[in-house]
Amino acid sequence: MPRWEPDARERLVGAALMLFSEQGYDDTTVAQIAERAGLTKSTFHRHFPDKRDVLAAGQATLSKLLAEGIADAPADASPLDAVAEGLRRAAAAFRPEIAAQITAVVATSTELQERAALKQVGMAAAMAEALVARGVPDPVARLAAEMGSLALKAGFAEWAPNADKKDIGALMTEHLERLRKSAAQL
Amino acid sequence: MPRWEPDARERLVGAALMLFSEQGYDDTTVAQIAERAGLTKSTFHRHFPDKRDVLAAGQATLSKLLAEGIADAPADASPLDAVAEGLRRAAAAFRPEIAAQITAVVATSTELQERAALKQVGMAAAMAEALVARGVPDPVARLAAEMGSLALKAGFAEWAPNADKKDIGALMTEHLERLRKSAAQL
Repeated sequence: MPRWEPDARERLVGAALMLFSEQGYDDTTVAQIAERAGLTKSTFHRHFPDKRDVLAAGQATLSKLLAEGIADAPADASPLDAVAEGLRRAAAAFRPEIAAQITAVVATSTELQERAALKQVGMAAAMAEALVARGVPDPVARLAAEMGSLALKAGFAEWAPNADKKDIGALMTEHLERLRKSAAQL
Repeated sequence: MPRWEPDARERLVGAALMLFSEQGYDDTTVAQIAERAGLTKSTFHRHFPDKRDVLAAGQATLSKLLAEGIADAPADASPLDAVAEGLRRAAAAFRPEIAAQITAVVATSTELQERAALKQVGMAAAMAEALVARGVPDPVARLAAEMGSLALKAGFAEWAPNADKKDIGALMTEHLERLRKSAAQL
């Protein structure tokens, strides 16, 4: 087996999802995930510290895209308009073919729910930082970033059951618009 | 040693804080915490599932007080005014004598930082639920709850270094007011 596996990461995520669905998250080991993917345990550990990190694999990519979209928004864009740009940019990273399966698996495990919650916290921090870099003052930046995070979560929840039919970018920005209107009723 | 230890919980938290400060979080065991508190390991486990849960001990109490304050706010209070009531009610549960030590210990451990982040998520959920029970529509409730959570975090960070001199309730509600004003600049 060659040391360099171009699609190893994706295969490991797919194998983990299958095993978590079939036999449960708690009863699945790293060795089983690697075997199912046709890879070694050490290849697994070159990609992920532990099994709990497999489903949070996209976090770094998502945070990067969110921050880039915010940075590239027009100079006169409002904080929330910049967040909408970030969400549109991040939409490309969501994979419709595994969305429903991820949702189903996460629902079965407290540990995976905790991972998902931490992922949200990390993405909100990335958005807040990108907004501050645009000159948005701190409490406004943090609030806009939390709204982006809520919109991402709500958009994903609506998208996942019908991921092949709906546009995640449009759903996330719709939820952001609803939150913008909600801010007037506080 | 009697099986019923009236102040066991508090003693365990104090012992854990001392040991985490002295020798680090990772190198401290449940057995050491129990010994330092003059209690047994099984008494520890009657109070906490694991050492990582010791510092999140107040979460259930805080969530309960936040929700009660929100529920008891006047019927005509706005969602954010109800959240402010929750924060004032929760203020009583913060312990000034350990605030600075908790902050210092959490700063040394990624695992404890993750626990703290999850604690925030849980408290925001409790506030959102209490707002929905008041009849606040869902996106407004979630947004107001996130603002409460941001205010709690910012208020605690400002309070902890001088916990004996400042009023945590006043600090949290000041931060909430700042967030209310920020909502106009989104």
